[in-house]
Amino acid sequence: MPLSATLNCDCGESYGQYTIGDDEGLFPIVDIANCACGFHASDFDVMAKTVLLAKKHAVGIGAHPSLPDQQGFGRRIMHLPPESFFNCLLYQAGAIDAFLKLNGLKFNHFKPHGQAYVMSAKDLELARQSAKIAKLYGVPLLGLPGSTHQEACKLEGAEFIPEFYADLQYGDEGQLLAPPSAAQRHPITPEQVYTRVRKMLETSTWMSLNDGKELRFPEGTDKVSICVHGDFPGAVETAKAVKRAIEDVAKGNKA
Amino acid sequence: MPLSATLNCDCGESYGQYTIGDDEGLFPIVDIANCACGFHASDFDVMAKTVLLAKKHAVGIGAHPSLPDQQGFGRRIMHLPPESFFNCLLYQAGAIDAFLKLNGLKFNHFKPHGQAYVMSAKDLELARQSAKIAKLYGVPLLGLPGSTHQEACKLEGAEFIPEFYADLQYGDEGQLLAPPSAAQRHPITPEQVYTRVRKMLETSTWMSLNDGKELRFPEGTDKVSICVHGDFPGAVETAKAVKRAIEDVAKGNKA
Amino acid sequence: MPLSATLNCDCGESYGQYTIGDDEGLFPIVDIANCACGFHASDFDVMAKTVLLAKKHAVGIGAHPSLPDQQGFGRRIMHLPPESFFNCLLYQAGAIDAFLKLNGLKFNHFKPHGQAYVMSAKDLELARQSAKIAKLYGVPLLGLPGSTHQEACKLEGAEFIPEFYADLQYGDEGQLLAPPSAAQRHPITPEQVYTRVRKMLETSTWMSLNDGKELRFPEGTDKVSICVHGDFPGAVETAKAVKRAIEDVAKGNKA
Amino acid sequence: MPLSATLNCDCGESYGQYTIGDDEGLFPIVDIANCACGFHASDFDVMAKTVLLAKKHAVGIGAHPSLPDQQGFGRRIMHLPPESFFNCLLYQAGAIDAFLKLNGLKFNHFKPHGQAYVMSAKDLELARQSAKIAKLYGVPLLGLPGSTHQEACKLEGAEFIPEFYADLQYGDEGQLLAPPSAAQRHPITPEQVYTRVRKMLETSTWMSLNDGKELRFPEGTDKVSICVHGDFPGAVETAKAVKRAIEDVAKGNKA
Repeated sequence: MPLSATLNCDCGESYGQYTIGDDEGLFPIVDIANCACGFHASDFDVMAKTVLLAKKHAVGIGAHPSLPDQQGFGRRIMHLPPESFFNCLLYQAGAIDAFLKLNGLKFNHFKPHGQAYVMSAKDLELARQSAKIAKLYGVPLLGLPGSTHQEACKLEGAEFIPEFYADLQYGDEGQLLAPPSAAQRHPITPEQVYTRVRKMLETSTWMSLNDGKELRFPEGTDKVSICVHGDFPGAVETAKAVKRAIEDVAKGNKA
Repeated sequence: MPLSATLNCDCGESYGQYTIGDDEGLFPIVDIANCACGFHASDFDVMAKTVLLAKKHAVGIGAHPSLPDQQGFGRRIMHLPPESFFNCLLYQAGAIDAFLKLNGLKFNHFKPHGQAYVMSAKDLELARQSAKIAKLYGVPLLGLPGSTHQEACKLEGAEFIPEFYADLQYGDEGQLLAPPSAAQRHPITPEQVYTRVRKMLETSTWMSLNDGKELRFPEGTDKVSICVHGDFPGAVETAKAVKRAIEDVAKGNKA
Repeated sequence: MPLSATLNCDCGESYGQYTIGDDEGLFPIVDIANCACGFHASDFDVMAKTVLLAKKHAVGIGAHPSLPDQQGFGRRIMHLPPESFFNCLLYQAGAIDAFLKLNGLKFNHFKPHGQAYVMSAKDLELARQSAKIAKLYGVPLLGLPGSTHQEACKLEGAEFIPEFYADLQYGDEGQLLAPPSAAQRHPITPEQVYTRVRKMLETSTWMSLNDGKELRFPEGTDKVSICVHGDFPGAVETAKAVKRAIEDVAKGNKA
Repeated sequence: MPLSATLNCDCGESYGQYTIGDDEGLFPIVDIANCACGFHASDFDVMAKTVLLAKKHAVGIGAHPSLPDQQGFGRRIMHLPPESFFNCLLYQAGAIDAFLKLNGLKFNHFKPHGQAYVMSAKDLELARQSAKIAKLYGVPLLGLPGSTHQEACKLEGAEFIPEFYADLQYGDEGQLLAPPSAAQRHPITPEQVYTRVRKMLETSTWMSLNDGKELRFPEGTDKVSICVHGDFPGAVETAKAVKRAIEDVAKGNKA
């Protein structure tokens, strides 16, 4: 039985006069999108516009909250106590929820951004804070399979959806090889993306960089989400390849 | 028939290591409180703590959103286009709503802070943005009686509750004489506060500074809210005097 | 006697992960550049990199300080008292000066950005604050000819250099027609730029939009600076046309 | 030969409407002060006012730059690459230098604040960035004796002045016991401060908490600075006791 999958991308990462990402190009393709909430990127005007665009394309919007680090795009390590980490993410969840409410849309999922994601994938206490917020809003947490993300959801009673990164290479321990440099050093063509996503959906496994080792989803995984980075070169083509793989697998089309 | 009244104060205006106001002193006295949302004051940790304290004292929390001006405490004039003004206030409404949701509390009211209040009391287009948000959350807008606040609520179909400032003097045109200087120049003792609040509730009228002119609520006003500035010297004593006046009038006690 | 001129552009307006402008394309062409100082754009890393690039191309760096309004790119009206306006601009002047000092470079000129420029071109009190800082650093203020910029420099004893905007149209009162919309509605080709800059240098006059009215520099002007917006489309081509015009006039080449 | 010493305190840590510290109380007592530069505390208006006050009391102003973390008062761990750490501190050094220049004052010393101090006392690469800036401005770096602060100054050719914290207890490894909790748990009376400062100046040694172990300055130390935290309760009385100890030792007065 192949895995069922949604396609997600980051979105709404522009700010003031600054533009990042191609939301207009990606929204017709993706199922759900992780919307920046004003701490690493975005502002209230960008959020308003992004949610409207998502509504037009029926893209489910999830919160993509960050550490309070705009200059570092949320990618610098910062130590916040767990309760402060919780408050930080909750604040942003509420902010994006307001724009969803305005448009009669439902909060779709929760996925911390940047170091908030990376740090909480290794620190159960931080991961529990994210899981609590997902639970509060009645939405799933998107996270790394087999990480403290998954463990925290179990402990807090939140739904967990594991992610596969279509445009990133993995190390032998299943770790993500850091964007954007790894992506630049090891570009993955749309055809390769199509092939590895099909394989992943059909077998629940994929290969680490250079096919060194077989990686797999934890036992019992039947639903996943596949992430495409909106700011990588060729993001729209990558997203199309993922979409095609998901649809072909779902319909039982031959490769 | 005397007016019915609630007592409101600003709250949650501390930030990081900085403290302003005496929420612990005021929350046992006031009915409702206007909570800073992180733009002129407060941060996610202060908001978490403030909402918990409000829950303990059964104080109804409303949003007190500001222009994006932390250094100026939201008291500097800034020109935002109306839709941007709307997005700015909506973002903050959502953020405070998250902490209310966490604590199982209801959003109580909406009241812009500082220049967001002052500017929108003179500019119908800005006032309508506030009224839209009050409508969206199904809560009343607190504002200046007879100002564009009131007119905007009528146009947008939002509930309006006019405010009386117990600790500020009024000019002959009904305008507030600017805090904190006017408050410092013309201190009002708790006994004076008691007297003017009683009179206001019993007659719907009050006097401008030096009793130069009689001011009154618009026709049809039967419910008001009385504001005490949490950061004025003697705020707790002022609040107690207001509270006593409200209760004495409600119970029909003699002055 | 034709006017002597330098060519200036804005620079260093990127921020964190965000990029604006083509400093690498413009620095080989311009003489001097107005460097963002972290309030409307830029950050300490961008400033470090921008000053290094300027050193490589021997471009004279001036401060381009802004109102404290990053989201609005310094283009929103904000009311600061004059002494606060002064402190705001001085802080930024010092910050960019540190990077110049590090590289053994001299502070070249002073030019407020966005609304700090526009507001002070109409408000003598604000303009005097800019002129005081230019005086303090012993550098000229770049500003609008005939505006309070020029008057303030006279009062404060600072050098004034009037600017001509090569890529903007002027109204009949000599006012700039606001970028970027006017620039988009009335694009000026490099050939037109060459022609109007030559004429301006040779006659001290230029025409308002549609050649409706002749505008001119105040009596006694012999040195000007010509501004090209680094973020306009075709900025590099525009800059080349201005440069060619300046050089042809200086050398007495025929048009 | 007793050590010669200056007395230093943090200053200028208010922000906008918020007040921290008693600069007016401390400036008549201290020799030099470490001025916040707008990143963990202060703003351009507070800096202007603080430098003026320092001028009035002939207090030497040094830069007290921070990690970019206003909400956390610069006390949260943040990972910046060394060159970014350098740019961050340099930006702030320049900003405070502008206010000194305005008042005809000299930059007195350099001392990173909060985690910028703590992290660089353990990380030579970060410490070198501070030392480079001290060297660039031709001023000493104040830091922890025997730490990477001292080593970095040697490597970079900057002057180093070791600090003694009059109002903090030390662990057996010579480490500071973290403020403010240790200060609250182990308050040191002005008389105790006088005694331990005298002893430190006369013998170059002091005792760890509960006199468990003798700590001492590195060989060759003849000049130190003694720090009093401006925001601790009783800071003015503590500062007076330190001042008296310094003067009594310098004049050879008996204890």
